[in-house]
Amino acid sequence: MRACQQRVNARLWAAVGSPSAGYSDGTLSEAMTYACAGSGKRIRPLLAYASALAVGGSIERADAAATAVELIHCYSLVHDDLPAMDDDDLRRGKPTVHKAFDEATAILVGDALQALAFELVAASGNGVGPEQRLGMVSCLASAAGAQGMVGGQALDFAAVGEQQSVEQLQQMHNLKTGALIRAAVSLGALSHAATSPAQLAALDDYAAKLGLAFQVRDDILDEISDTATLGKPQGSDSSANKPTYLSLLGLDAARAKAEELAAEAVEALNDFDDRATPLRQLAQYIVARLH
Amino acid sequence: MRACQQRVNARLWAAVGSPSAGYSDGTLSEAMTYACAGSGKRIRPLLAYASALAVGGSIERADAAATAVELIHCYSLVHDDLPAMDDDDLRRGKPTVHKAFDEATAILVGDALQALAFELVAASGNGVGPEQRLGMVSCLASAAGAQGMVGGQALDFAAVGEQQSVEQLQQMHNLKTGALIRAAVSLGALSHAATSPAQLAALDDYAAKLGLAFQVRDDILDEISDTATLGKPQGSDSSANKPTYLSLLGLDAARAKAEELAAEAVEALNDFDDRATPLRQLAQYIVARLH
Repeated sequence: MRACQQRVNARLWAAVGSPSAGYSDGTLSEAMTYACAGSGKRIRPLLAYASALAVGGSIERADAAATAVELIHCYSLVHDDLPAMDDDDLRRGKPTVHKAFDEATAILVGDALQALAFELVAASGNGVGPEQRLGMVSCLASAAGAQGMVGGQALDFAAVGEQQSVEQLQQMHNLKTGALIRAAVSLGALSHAATSPAQLAALDDYAAKLGLAFQVRDDILDEISDTATLGKPQGSDSSANKPTYLSLLGLDAARAKAEELAAEAVEALNDFDDRATPLRQLAQYIVARLH
Repeated sequence: MRACQQRVNARLWAAVGSPSAGYSDGTLSEAMTYACAGSGKRIRPLLAYASALAVGGSIERADAAATAVELIHCYSLVHDDLPAMDDDDLRRGKPTVHKAFDEATAILVGDALQALAFELVAASGNGVGPEQRLGMVSCLASAAGAQGMVGGQALDFAAVGEQQSVEQLQQMHNLKTGALIRAAVSLGALSHAATSPAQLAALDDYAAKLGLAFQVRDDILDEISDTATLGKPQGSDSSANKPTYLSLLGLDAARAKAEELAAEAVEALNDFDDRATPLRQLAQYIVARLH
């Protein structure tokens, strides 16, 4: 895990922060680096790498997939934290981008990181053929857009202060966090040419369960953890009057739900051999993590 | 021109507004449609279509290129108009997206339109091969991102109230508006498989000149036109204390500069036959337009 985290951190740095990236505006480049740096768990890159390994692919060929999904994730955090959205001052233990820089820069940083994600996937040679890369662009774009992550953010925003059913909450999270987690797993698998449609379907089943488990755990942590551990204000979701799994299910049922979803995710990998061990371990990690 | 404008309007509607687009959040879909509708000149789609024709390609195969560049353009306007950016209330004669909806929706609309542009280019079959489509994704992504349009917006934002040289102004516009205009022309040409590198280079020369002519004309219109004709507040750039070609060159020299750049753009097409007539006409149109 640590090796893959360091690997994607180096790829992110090369894409946004290194002098050779050659941006004309120093502040923009600095703010893009700031947005991608830090103590992020890099869950999505880890999933992309682990998924590539599960189908017999390689870490090297999954680099662009891993980096691109994290760029999309980082951009979404920057925009999500904006005053007009969640209005958060703290992220990964540091001031949010609009606090450390300004709002205009934060808007532009998000926009630039999104474009960069597609640039990376399209450009990645590294033994990944054009049809595969095109499939990766399609998958990432639909996961990121209005029928995926952004659509989920819109549902989330519309739900503030509203009474929500578990089904509505689930639909929102399926889009808001689930879509990109599924894309991470799919992109990793797509980086290997020999991945079969059946493998892709099983991996997507895994990822759908895992995405929900991830969100339930997030809601639990928002309640039981503290600001220093989380790196963002504890209780920020419940205090924003957003519906959470905790408020709907209570703590014990939410814990049980997260465990159950992680077990179902692992079950979806039944036809995979030992090369899927990292994916199985990530399912356990996601429901046990403390931040 | 009108036929191509209607054609791209129909494509935009199919992508963002039609019920079959199937978005879960009604407001987001409505706001995306709002952002793309209206009396836009559709200069970038027209350039993509005209460029495809110039190299012997077809309108049909250039559809995804034309639609995608306009989606990127529309998203950039929505974000540019935000309070933290240019803080504009009026666009194409209508309230801007954050005025008609709200700021959070405007941020998400821009994010979703950007993803959709890449989704369209990657998905377009229509006789355009995978390598070509991948080239189009790369071209569009680098034009849209920190080394293109967004980089130009950052330079523009940093320049407010600053003394600028003509060279600095030119560099900013080369990125802010020029990059996407060049991408429109390149994407149109890339939609035709037989386009040669020499043709691409000549077209890029044309587009670079044209992009600058377009911006000089914009600055002139910002000064001499009125709000009703422009569809946005007259004098908004000069009153925001932004450097313009007018403030640097004066009206007469700016007019002469625009004419000269349009003539140079047409010269870059010397090796093209009559099929480049629409591109030549667009160069004339761009420096004569009244809004």
